[in-house]
Amino acid sequence: MTPTPPPAMSDAAFVLVLALLLVSPLAIAGLALINTGLGRSRSAAQSLLGSLAIVAVAAIAFALAGATFAGTAAGASHAMHAGGKPWDWLGAAPLFLAGLGSAPPQAQLGLLFEFLAVTLAALIPWGSGADRLKLTAGCAVAAVLGALVFPLVAHWVWAGGWLAQLGLNFSLGAGFQDPAGAATVHVLGGMAALVVVWLAGPRKGKFPPGGFATAMPGHNAVYILFGCLLALAGWLAFNVAGAVLWLHAPLSALPGAAVNTLLSASGAVAATFAVTRIRFGKPDASLCANGWLAGLVASSATAGIVTPVQGLVIGLVAGVLTPLLVEVLELAVSVDDPSGAIAVHGAGGLWGLVAAGALAPQAGQLLAQLVGIAALIGIALPLVYLLLWVVNRFVPLRVEQDGERIGMDLHELGGGAYPEFVIHRDDSYR
Amino acid sequence: MTPTPPPAMSDAAFVLVLALLLVSPLAIAGLALINTGLGRSRSAAQSLLGSLAIVAVAAIAFALAGATFAGTAAGASHAMHAGGKPWDWLGAAPLFLAGLGSAPPQAQLGLLFEFLAVTLAALIPWGSGADRLKLTAGCAVAAVLGALVFPLVAHWVWAGGWLAQLGLNFSLGAGFQDPAGAATVHVLGGMAALVVVWLAGPRKGKFPPGGFATAMPGHNAVYILFGCLLALAGWLAFNVAGAVLWLHAPLSALPGAAVNTLLSASGAVAATFAVTRIRFGKPDASLCANGWLAGLVASSATAGIVTPVQGLVIGLVAGVLTPLLVEVLELAVSVDDPSGAIAVHGAGGLWGLVAAGALAPQAGQLLAQLVGIAALIGIALPLVYLLLWVVNRFVPLRVEQDGERIGMDLHELGGGAYPEFVIHRDDSYR
Amino acid sequence: MTPTPPPAMSDAAFVLVLALLLVSPLAIAGLALINTGLGRSRSAAQSLLGSLAIVAVAAIAFALAGATFAGTAAGASHAMHAGGKPWDWLGAAPLFLAGLGSAPPQAQLGLLFEFLAVTLAALIPWGSGADRLKLTAGCAVAAVLGALVFPLVAHWVWAGGWLAQLGLNFSLGAGFQDPAGAATVHVLGGMAALVVVWLAGPRKGKFPPGGFATAMPGHNAVYILFGCLLALAGWLAFNVAGAVLWLHAPLSALPGAAVNTLLSASGAVAATFAVTRIRFGKPDASLCANGWLAGLVASSATAGIVTPVQGLVIGLVAGVLTPLLVEVLELAVSVDDPSGAIAVHGAGGLWGLVAAGALAPQAGQLLAQLVGIAALIGIALPLVYLLLWVVNRFVPLRVEQDGERIGMDLHELGGGAYPEFVIHRDDSYR
Repeated sequence: MTPTPPPAMSDAAFVLVLALLLVSPLAIAGLALINTGLGRSRSAAQSLLGSLAIVAVAAIAFALAGATFAGTAAGASHAMHAGGKPWDWLGAAPLFLAGLGSAPPQAQLGLLFEFLAVTLAALIPWGSGADRLKLTAGCAVAAVLGALVFPLVAHWVWAGGWLAQLGLNFSLGAGFQDPAGAATVHVLGGMAALVVVWLAGPRKGKFPPGGFATAMPGHNAVYILFGCLLALAGWLAFNVAGAVLWLHAPLSALPGAAVNTLLSASGAVAATFAVTRIRFGKPDASLCANGWLAGLVASSATAGIVTPVQGLVIGLVAGVLTPLLVEVLELAVSVDDPSGAIAVHGAGGLWGLVAAGALAPQAGQLLAQLVGIAALIGIALPLVYLLLWVVNRFVPLRVEQDGERIGMDLHELGGGAYPEFVIHRDDSYR
Repeated sequence: MTPTPPPAMSDAAFVLVLALLLVSPLAIAGLALINTGLGRSRSAAQSLLGSLAIVAVAAIAFALAGATFAGTAAGASHAMHAGGKPWDWLGAAPLFLAGLGSAPPQAQLGLLFEFLAVTLAALIPWGSGADRLKLTAGCAVAAVLGALVFPLVAHWVWAGGWLAQLGLNFSLGAGFQDPAGAATVHVLGGMAALVVVWLAGPRKGKFPPGGFATAMPGHNAVYILFGCLLALAGWLAFNVAGAVLWLHAPLSALPGAAVNTLLSASGAVAATFAVTRIRFGKPDASLCANGWLAGLVASSATAGIVTPVQGLVIGLVAGVLTPLLVEVLELAVSVDDPSGAIAVHGAGGLWGLVAAGALAPQAGQLLAQLVGIAALIGIALPLVYLLLWVVNRFVPLRVEQDGERIGMDLHELGGGAYPEFVIHRDDSYR
Repeated sequence: MTPTPPPAMSDAAFVLVLALLLVSPLAIAGLALINTGLGRSRSAAQSLLGSLAIVAVAAIAFALAGATFAGTAAGASHAMHAGGKPWDWLGAAPLFLAGLGSAPPQAQLGLLFEFLAVTLAALIPWGSGADRLKLTAGCAVAAVLGALVFPLVAHWVWAGGWLAQLGLNFSLGAGFQDPAGAATVHVLGGMAALVVVWLAGPRKGKFPPGGFATAMPGHNAVYILFGCLLALAGWLAFNVAGAVLWLHAPLSALPGAAVNTLLSASGAVAATFAVTRIRFGKPDASLCANGWLAGLVASSATAGIVTPVQGLVIGLVAGVLTPLLVEVLELAVSVDDPSGAIAVHGAGGLWGLVAAGALAPQAGQLLAQLVGIAALIGIALPLVYLLLWVVNRFVPLRVEQDGERIGMDLHELGGGAYPEFVIHRDDSYR
């Protein structure tokens, strides 16, 4: 009844995955820089110090509690039985990573993958709460995701949990597939971003009463666009490592996964470039960065599965949807998401998961993906909302009014990121 | 009559090359940042958005058409017969990367290498056209290089084409050797840069009538010099991956190739530092960055072939030549090349190719290299000129006058890269 | 009597270490950017051009002289005999890296590791001398470290020297262990930083007569904090490569080493965040960056040895000690160290070396570590002082008074890093 353990890993595959995971912090560095660039100059130091703190808190929370709940594919777990089937819903690995060194190689690498994945996931809502979320709020979100929510979902998806076993138990393709974190990192992070902006509200002045939404351009386009190029390297590493770890892809499938990643980002940025040029007369640099990232996010679900032409088309679709969705969220739903994370990571991840199901050769794979998406939206989203609602009751996520007025850097750190540069007065550049 | 296929690749070599190729976008990120730093602040967002667009267009063009023409070493190709010898001049691989996953491992990695190489090549002329080339111009150059010119040269050099077979057919050493793109990326990119500045002309005010050339310093030295350090990591990866792929170097030759890369850059920057200090009284930061890059470019031809001391000397020579050539191009030939790409990539690549021939143990290798260089200058350069001349007739490469006056960011994107920073008025910092 | 050579290296381990070393320049790029951000805007170009020059000089000095003195584990060396024991104190490898390609794989990789380590070490004092050290001073320090001091220590530690043989000859555990440069890079670099600030003195205005020390905040917090994220990737690569090379760790121990690295940085930044918040009411971004780096530095001695929880605690301690030590050095000892390198690299490295000894399973390991530390402080520190004292007699390390007044960029390069940005007048932002 327990699933068969994955095949043993060759030394070559082991060192490939390890080397790639060690450079995947480039995705973290790139994303943190993008978030900072998309915010205001008077919040730049707080944004990046928050990123370091979030990485730290997410990693510590995962080490002390999360890894136990995440479990490993062949390890101990909690399961319910219903309808004659096992529903494996929570891992039960040893506390504090005990016995890590004697675990099977694949399990060790899986754990390292999850460490990097959870820090990336925790950074996503931080960008959406830019210019108003307190450092403690960022850390609280990281703790909630790192200790509990991410591990829960990661167990379902990567450690023999019920979503992974949809194939075995219900003949739904190969079970829910998420080879590089489209669900566990990006959809989860995007949902946390939605909760954060929901609880914290928009920046002051973003939606003036009776007027149009105020454009608040990112303060440094170089950070935003350069961060996209760094992120490409991180994503290439993550997608290929994930294809080996979670799809058990043979070496000969991996150059194709890398090509798909590049083509998804390429198709996406080309599409966003075209769409924003048509909509606004000129291409929009920030939205193009969003598009590029959404293409990468979609590739996290698909790079190891599809053909290059399919990868390109997946990117094109992501690049068309992203700017439209950003606009709908801002103008129709009055959501103030400076980094666009809800559209980029949330919707981009969902699109990738659906596409992976639709294009998979196995029968039932699309249904497996939809069940997984339903679990994310139906279980993980309410759980994140509940936990952050409680946090917000005791430690308000949002900064005091005065802090927003003088800027997060001065308020939370006592000094700005650019003490020697002359900055425009607040209302002079809008 | 067909060349023998390369020896089968071990799994260890495969995963090494794959891991290195996945981090080689660091060279792309570094070069894009250098280009941006060497331009003006009012073009910074356009410069980096252009870089994303160029990466995208080059990758898409190569996927849809270029890869077919590039072909693979053991794959189908078009050949003419003349003088009793085959002249294999164009690949004929399946369209749209069909069958990628079932190609031999070496061919798959070669294709991935070419994807990254072509995007790097397409970025080179973009830096030379800084502050006046339109986004569409950058994309057009990327399309021309990605779909046709790069694949043509790559086939000749890396896929059993006539240059690769100069050894087999005419006993010229091991045939033309270009282990990491000195010819296909750098000389080609440098020639495209020459064509671009030729067609687009200098920036307004660069060469005032009857006066001296105006110095237009890059707007951010941190981007320029930090980009150089990032590029080092990318180059190390590229050079070692190339030595395995295109020279079939054994593992034991690879640490030496890495040391050579580091020493070439080191020798070059030391030489440029000394030369500019002697010439101008103080070392010039931008030219030192140019020198460092030229050392890396020269190593792309030589790192896998020479001894460490030779690598150091190759760098020293590159570092002496680069600042002199930049000055000659600017003052004697009135070429306005903000990034110095013509000297850095064009001349640096040529120097590396010649040095690789002169220092190779095989007889006839220098002649093989010279034949390759002649083909680049005699065939690829006119072809690039012709194609971009046609492009320029229909979609002018150069921005309208007003765009140059207000800055590329405002003109093409509708907003600047640094909306919150106070920038000097245009004529106040010269 | 000679130590047994290390076991032969598998191809998988070889390619892992090689791939990781090729991306470890991310640590160099990150550290250089941090140093620049912690300095003044009017020294930013000089800081980064200095970094390129230091990398170059250190690499060239190591290639031409240092590698000979460093030697390799199974290679020729100079040894004295005293007390019936051999004291192997200096390598005697062939000059100019001759025969590199035919050396055993492990020796080749060790040499490449040392090339990257020595450039990193030479960058450390450069940050401490920010805003007043001349470019020639940075190069002189790099030459001294690269040609002589680093090779000496590296031979003792990594190439079968007397510190490495403390276990064999005196039953002190496994001999002095420094798996990723905590001693050879960080303690040595931190000691060189101490010597540099000692000889050069504080920045003008830092310690006004009869008043408090002047706070001189770094000019760009984004560079500082983003550099920390880049450094993480570099450190992960370095620590894992070092564990294979110098500890001969099996593949199955390596994911744990990576997790430890991440947890050390995480614990450290969390602790510094808390300490500075308690001390000053608000967390201090620069000190948090220092803490993060100190955690990474401590992990360089311990990541391959300890458990994850121990790794976390090592980071916590480093994060508590670092801000206190920075404050003591500044306020009690009047040391002006803009980058905090003495505390971060010097003390952080010492703490890591002690912790590695205390937590090692072998008896006598702590004593071996203490002997190594005594050798660093008792031999290497005086040697560095002597050599730099001589340098300072002939080529003053410190810039002329006027240079400090107008800024290093204008004085040494003739132009600033940010020519288009409006910068506050010097005394307006304190």
